[in-house]
Amino acid sequence: MRKEHDFLGEMEVPDDVYYGVQTLRAMENFNITGERLDRDFIIAMAFVKKAAAIANMSTGRLEAKIGNALVAAADEVIAGKLHDQFPVDPIQGGAGTSVNMNTNEVLVNRALEIIGEAKGNYDIISPNNHANMAQSTNDAFPTGIKVCIIHKSISLIKALNRLVAELEKKAVEYKDVLKMGRTHLQDAVPITLGQEMASYASAIRRGIKRIEYAVDGVHTINMGATAVGTGLNAEPAYIKAVEKALSDITGEKFITATNLIDATNNTDGFADVSGSLKVTALVLVKMANDFRLMASGPRCGLNEIKLPARQPGSSIMPGKVNPVIAEVLDQTCYQVIANDMAVSLGVENGQFELNVMEPVIAFNLFNSMRYLTNAVNTFVDKLLIDLQPNRQQCETWLDKSVGIVTALLPHIGYENSSMLAKEAYSTGKPIRQIILEKGLLTKAAMDHILSPAEMTQPGIAGSDLLK
Amino acid sequence: MRKEHDFLGEMEVPDDVYYGVQTLRAMENFNITGERLDRDFIIAMAFVKKAAAIANMSTGRLEAKIGNALVAAADEVIAGKLHDQFPVDPIQGGAGTSVNMNTNEVLVNRALEIIGEAKGNYDIISPNNHANMAQSTNDAFPTGIKVCIIHKSISLIKALNRLVAELEKKAVEYKDVLKMGRTHLQDAVPITLGQEMASYASAIRRGIKRIEYAVDGVHTINMGATAVGTGLNAEPAYIKAVEKALSDITGEKFITATNLIDATNNTDGFADVSGSLKVTALVLVKMANDFRLMASGPRCGLNEIKLPARQPGSSIMPGKVNPVIAEVLDQTCYQVIANDMAVSLGVENGQFELNVMEPVIAFNLFNSMRYLTNAVNTFVDKLLIDLQPNRQQCETWLDKSVGIVTALLPHIGYENSSMLAKEAYSTGKPIRQIILEKGLLTKAAMDHILSPAEMTQPGIAGSDLLK
Amino acid sequence: MRKEHDFLGEMEVPDDVYYGVQTLRAMENFNITGERLDRDFIIAMAFVKKAAAIANMSTGRLEAKIGNALVAAADEVIAGKLHDQFPVDPIQGGAGTSVNMNTNEVLVNRALEIIGEAKGNYDIISPNNHANMAQSTNDAFPTGIKVCIIHKSISLIKALNRLVAELEKKAVEYKDVLKMGRTHLQDAVPITLGQEMASYASAIRRGIKRIEYAVDGVHTINMGATAVGTGLNAEPAYIKAVEKALSDITGEKFITATNLIDATNNTDGFADVSGSLKVTALVLVKMANDFRLMASGPRCGLNEIKLPARQPGSSIMPGKVNPVIAEVLDQTCYQVIANDMAVSLGVENGQFELNVMEPVIAFNLFNSMRYLTNAVNTFVDKLLIDLQPNRQQCETWLDKSVGIVTALLPHIGYENSSMLAKEAYSTGKPIRQIILEKGLLTKAAMDHILSPAEMTQPGIAGSDLLK
Amino acid sequence: MRKEHDFLGEMEVPDDVYYGVQTLRAMENFNITGERLDRDFIIAMAFVKKAAAIANMSTGRLEAKIGNALVAAADEVIAGKLHDQFPVDPIQGGAGTSVNMNTNEVLVNRALEIIGEAKGNYDIISPNNHANMAQSTNDAFPTGIKVCIIHKSISLIKALNRLVAELEKKAVEYKDVLKMGRTHLQDAVPITLGQEMASYASAIRRGIKRIEYAVDGVHTINMGATAVGTGLNAEPAYIKAVEKALSDITGEKFITATNLIDATNNTDGFADVSGSLKVTALVLVKMANDFRLMASGPRCGLNEIKLPARQPGSSIMPGKVNPVIAEVLDQTCYQVIANDMAVSLGVENGQFELNVMEPVIAFNLFNSMRYLTNAVNTFVDKLLIDLQPNRQQCETWLDKSVGIVTALLPHIGYENSSMLAKEAYSTGKPIRQIILEKGLLTKAAMDHILSPAEMTQPGIAGSDLLK
Repeated sequence: MRKEHDFLGEMEVPDDVYYGVQTLRAMENFNITGERLDRDFIIAMAFVKKAAAIANMSTGRLEAKIGNALVAAADEVIAGKLHDQFPVDPIQGGAGTSVNMNTNEVLVNRALEIIGEAKGNYDIISPNNHANMAQSTNDAFPTGIKVCIIHKSISLIKALNRLVAELEKKAVEYKDVLKMGRTHLQDAVPITLGQEMASYASAIRRGIKRIEYAVDGVHTINMGATAVGTGLNAEPAYIKAVEKALSDITGEKFITATNLIDATNNTDGFADVSGSLKVTALVLVKMANDFRLMASGPRCGLNEIKLPARQPGSSIMPGKVNPVIAEVLDQTCYQVIANDMAVSLGVENGQFELNVMEPVIAFNLFNSMRYLTNAVNTFVDKLLIDLQPNRQQCETWLDKSVGIVTALLPHIGYENSSMLAKEAYSTGKPIRQIILEKGLLTKAAMDHILSPAEMTQPGIAGSDLLK
Repeated sequence: MRKEHDFLGEMEVPDDVYYGVQTLRAMENFNITGERLDRDFIIAMAFVKKAAAIANMSTGRLEAKIGNALVAAADEVIAGKLHDQFPVDPIQGGAGTSVNMNTNEVLVNRALEIIGEAKGNYDIISPNNHANMAQSTNDAFPTGIKVCIIHKSISLIKALNRLVAELEKKAVEYKDVLKMGRTHLQDAVPITLGQEMASYASAIRRGIKRIEYAVDGVHTINMGATAVGTGLNAEPAYIKAVEKALSDITGEKFITATNLIDATNNTDGFADVSGSLKVTALVLVKMANDFRLMASGPRCGLNEIKLPARQPGSSIMPGKVNPVIAEVLDQTCYQVIANDMAVSLGVENGQFELNVMEPVIAFNLFNSMRYLTNAVNTFVDKLLIDLQPNRQQCETWLDKSVGIVTALLPHIGYENSSMLAKEAYSTGKPIRQIILEKGLLTKAAMDHILSPAEMTQPGIAGSDLLK
Repeated sequence: MRKEHDFLGEMEVPDDVYYGVQTLRAMENFNITGERLDRDFIIAMAFVKKAAAIANMSTGRLEAKIGNALVAAADEVIAGKLHDQFPVDPIQGGAGTSVNMNTNEVLVNRALEIIGEAKGNYDIISPNNHANMAQSTNDAFPTGIKVCIIHKSISLIKALNRLVAELEKKAVEYKDVLKMGRTHLQDAVPITLGQEMASYASAIRRGIKRIEYAVDGVHTINMGATAVGTGLNAEPAYIKAVEKALSDITGEKFITATNLIDATNNTDGFADVSGSLKVTALVLVKMANDFRLMASGPRCGLNEIKLPARQPGSSIMPGKVNPVIAEVLDQTCYQVIANDMAVSLGVENGQFELNVMEPVIAFNLFNSMRYLTNAVNTFVDKLLIDLQPNRQQCETWLDKSVGIVTALLPHIGYENSSMLAKEAYSTGKPIRQIILEKGLLTKAAMDHILSPAEMTQPGIAGSDLLK
Repeated sequence: MRKEHDFLGEMEVPDDVYYGVQTLRAMENFNITGERLDRDFIIAMAFVKKAAAIANMSTGRLEAKIGNALVAAADEVIAGKLHDQFPVDPIQGGAGTSVNMNTNEVLVNRALEIIGEAKGNYDIISPNNHANMAQSTNDAFPTGIKVCIIHKSISLIKALNRLVAELEKKAVEYKDVLKMGRTHLQDAVPITLGQEMASYASAIRRGIKRIEYAVDGVHTINMGATAVGTGLNAEPAYIKAVEKALSDITGEKFITATNLIDATNNTDGFADVSGSLKVTALVLVKMANDFRLMASGPRCGLNEIKLPARQPGSSIMPGKVNPVIAEVLDQTCYQVIANDMAVSLGVENGQFELNVMEPVIAFNLFNSMRYLTNAVNTFVDKLLIDLQPNRQQCETWLDKSVGIVTALLPHIGYENSSMLAKEAYSTGKPIRQIILEKGLLTKAAMDHILSPAEMTQPGIAGSDLLK
């Protein structure tokens, strides 16, 4: 055991751990979720510290020997090492001080080892004076969140793009699968299964664009803001240098906020990212539910598509195959929608120069991004790739439908069409039969108007007959 | 025009209006929603003022002539008069001061008229000294909200009870309408449409019980709490008297809070009422969605029930009938769920001795209760009463189903059942046929096991055969 | 009374009303909120119908006499006339069919009058065949929502820009009002009141940008999609023409969706607009709460600013002035946040080719936009313009503060600063006094480091002394 | 490796694991959160299986040798063993089939070992035929959720009771700490710090009562409902026996639902529990925020209480102590509020005979209960126990206040009081001084009226003087 102290007093720290007294206090204070920090976030914090060390060396404030050791330590964390040294609970008081100090302590102790010194020897390299040089939790922590969001958005957008690509592939494959279009869950007019797949793809593309737009917003950082955004103790040269260093080492174009005070006390950028996830989740729920409906039955439901069987559907009903992958996507989306509420509550409750709710904001953002990425990839891999249309059933439904009368509107008028539909409903006769019985159209005219090509593309079906 | 003043100065008030200077200020200050106060709330505030006047007369602090005039004025408002004299916006700052003073001013000016004095003659009867005697906005306003909630809950619970009664009537009517039961939107095992109706009724009954329990909680009032709950300026005798008076005139059993400070600064009771509405809304959404699914088609959907046609379903597709009543119930429930969020945000944001967000809490509670009452009554009157089961279609589905193999489990085991189901799915053959082909059961045994009576009641279908 | 019929039968319509049988049915079916359609929405629907009539005339499908009469009728509605002829409830089933048919009926009956025919004479001009020509509720209704959102966004953004301008004016005015900066509600380091005002302005600017971005998205319309997005019955020439006509008459650049099916069944664009309002609301709540905190007291609170008195603050506590305008902004924002939940629930619950929840989506969007515009204008007019800083109190606080030790960090190190702070807290002595007593700095050095100019701009306070 | 198969085919299972093929499929299908099942939930599922085995033995359907082995295996899990054998993701499709089968497989394989057989030897003891006998996921899984909720509620209520007890202790300790009462964050009239503590306690007591009421509701179980609630394959004797067995082994009084179908397809009971947590969270946020405000400063804020220092408050500002424990309670409550939205979305989205969203419902409920229990205990242990009032500062504020004029109202009237307040605000003079200068009251009368005893208890301060 080694002894460390802060201004509250001294504590014993196990010799082998890289964190120090302030991490220990956090472990004592915050036992809420029992969960670990997101690994991407640990890496993101290391990036921030590395950038700060580089910047502080460049302004001459940080001695190269110390700075280089800190950079080397940060590189190890970035490479995935030492992650077990970050035991602080993701939901914590103190606006992220514990995450920031946990990072400072781990990097300093590893840096001390690197230069051949014993852990805890903070006279040589100090968590507060060196690892945290020219920083405050209030700039380092939100910047770490931003680096992490950007990192996670890459996986998420990749997953969403896979989904779009696969949907568009299905759109082509199913372009001739004519089926009943439905509004209000009621039979409407024909559409193709391919058109439906293309529609999902198109909406998700917008979702991707919105996420990108929102994530673009969190490239604006407040490094150099220090405590309240006024930049006290952060030299202008450092601010310039840290912006450049962080951009260089992450490969992302970070920009120092024009107004550092705003960038420190307002967290709307996080709400915007979360909101973009939520809007995308809403689109995905709609899609997943359509899949569940189309796969319903199979004997007593729509049965228009066949989902791959991924597990026995019931512990009691043999042979049952449930749309479990669509169900898990739905549930994940509900979680994302709910997490957005947590983010909103956090963002709303800042006061004056800081929003102390940033930990719960970050926790929910990271969870939403991770869960959603996983659920989207699962949907592609476990459901979409092996999806099969049930062409025969789609055709059977269409033959029975009445909604096709809509196509006759320009030819026979609304009131005639209305009566036609009514008769079909009450007698159960097919529309085509009644048309011929009533002599409303010739068979040739009818067949032309009601052909798929005429009915699923813009324009008046059978418009040539009207000329 | 008459002149009135408060400590901010003098304003001109039109001669014919009953409200005064403070209402005028509120009209200038708060133009947010453009909506009017809920009429039940205006009445509720009049009840509170009437009770206070009676109590103040009983303690001798309020002269009978004045008190009786105030009571008479309140009675007019309770009877539905003068409601156009309450122009303040429901969303207002000041924690309800504007509603409270609007009420005080209207009652005082009407009281002045009743005793033959000119409106505005506040030296004789004063909004602050008499109508508001022994009160503060901080006790009168939340008590008014509570009186209003209780009043509105009566209509709501009546509507919900009508819904339960009608569902239970349908449960009896449809008790022999066998249909496919579905889990995961997949065919499961048989159930009756009557059992489904009884299930909705049973869940709504719990909703009613929860609303009653929550509304019971808002019978605890804080009259006499005055500004911060310490009861400054409210005599114990008055507190006792106002509790009794309010109970007497409303016919509800109000109870003065044991801890008046708590009752003034905590508004969790409102969140609880709103929460109980939300839970009921969740149940109603599920029910409405089931109705929409069962009515889907009619040609290309489940088509198990027929909803009464209430309006042409489409401006373009003739003959289409949509489940518009179920849809409006869904949407109303979404509003109730969302309003609960507004209530929660309001309740959460009290500080110290008061929650100044009470107006937005009340606005959302009243809207939720009014909308929900209307939507439930609409569902009963426009949909449920004229609902028709489609017995034939229910039967047709059942004949096609595979899920009935579950009933065979105790007779042939899980693995045999599994294989049976698999073969039925792949070949399209009816289950019954395969059973006989494979000689798994005799026809008599099969018919007995798969009979409705055996399949929709607890117990092993065909259990007598196992003995 | 005149008689009108639809395919459900005949109804009597009062002779003097412009709406017809389908509006009557809607009035019978949907009594939920008791509220009226937003007037901007009525106008927006008229724009859509006018554009459709122009387009249909241009393709030769609609006779000029009828088309021109419909255009003239639409112009009257756009000019604010006949709004009392739109009695349908904003929350309605049928995905907006009732709003669409109400508009069709009013325009047709007014058009009939214009050409000298009697109302109800639908053989001459028909709601379905002419006013709704080449349209469906499923394209006309969401397009009307979009026209309305765009219209409302102009007022909202104007209000937000006024707020930004006034905040920036205050930022200049208060640029020398030094005050305590606070994080965690704890004293941190100095900042100016002007910097805080600039920070609010900066965040709201982002809010405006996000709203603009989201509103930009709803310029994509689906006119010509008709029932399910396939464009059945809508000729390509019409689709082109209606896009142009709507752009021309509204002065906004509308674009026909590339994928009309997606544009018909996905409503994520509405969730995005609502989400942008929510994020802005979160920023406004934070600002309003800061104002409430700064105005707290005045004797027993922060008392750093003086809000204009807008109404007596209490019916019982004389002389009390409450931050009622900030409070009403808070509550309005809570409503906007809650309404976003209603929008989300609506958007999520589309199925297949349509989202039937569009009415509740529109209702909440329009309310949010109207309320927020009003509340922001109120905040500017009733609070911000007459805001006064309490310079003396700001100074008094600063003199007492300990947080200024942070500025000494680079000069005396973290541990010394820590001990200094600790002693100040325990003894109550001013920091400056302890510094001099301990001889940590010369008076000149101390005064220089702790000067406002050094402390509220980026850089190390007193950095020249370190060289 | 051993080979296992289900109706989808064969898989290899590592020899040493207790779970089987269906758990493996779940592991492949659902990688969403990366988190583990709540340990209390694993135990709860074991309780359910144990009860079912006991009941099945009692009806003679399950052989004693097998049943006893299953009971023994369940007892091990209840004792905390084998928890690492439950690898399925908490967010999963299939309505809990994976949790149910994971449990069945672990118990069966352990039971096989216990009777000296090899794992995987399902011909002897089978997951489906024995561990799941007379059950379905659709009854076993929700019953497991209920057992877990009840278990967790015990810890939560214990934590809340500790909080109430400690607050009430403080209420007594601080009963003479007079301080300014505040409404609208503005000075109102005096109150004691003890009264405030008692108020928090009183509100939390209501929260406990509501949680208890809601948890009482989930004592109603649907064991015996099997697939769709009709009880197919579950004998009445078993249903009775399993109710008794579950009650006996858990010590809780479980009751079989009167309507098993309702109990299977409606999950409102879970929404009710979550809602009760949310309402309690709202109360806790208000309390935590009051603590943060009272602790604000210390030099430039209210400074009425002193929170124990739990960690250095800043990585850059030495000596700063932040209200980190109150902050973490706030954030936890935001999470609980947000989780309630996830639960609501889940509950709302049931269809027909089942709610397949139960896994996400359970995940959020368990997280909310665990987090909240931890946060409340943290608040008690790390903040409340060591709380110190700042008596001197409370007194200082009170001396400066104007709000005490309210007490003079019955003695000098509203308008006089108003003018008095106004003069005090404009001149800065103490109220007492102006009273004497204006000769409004004698000094003796004034001192009596404004004494603490007169001002913080119901009644007119100085009422004896009015006689």
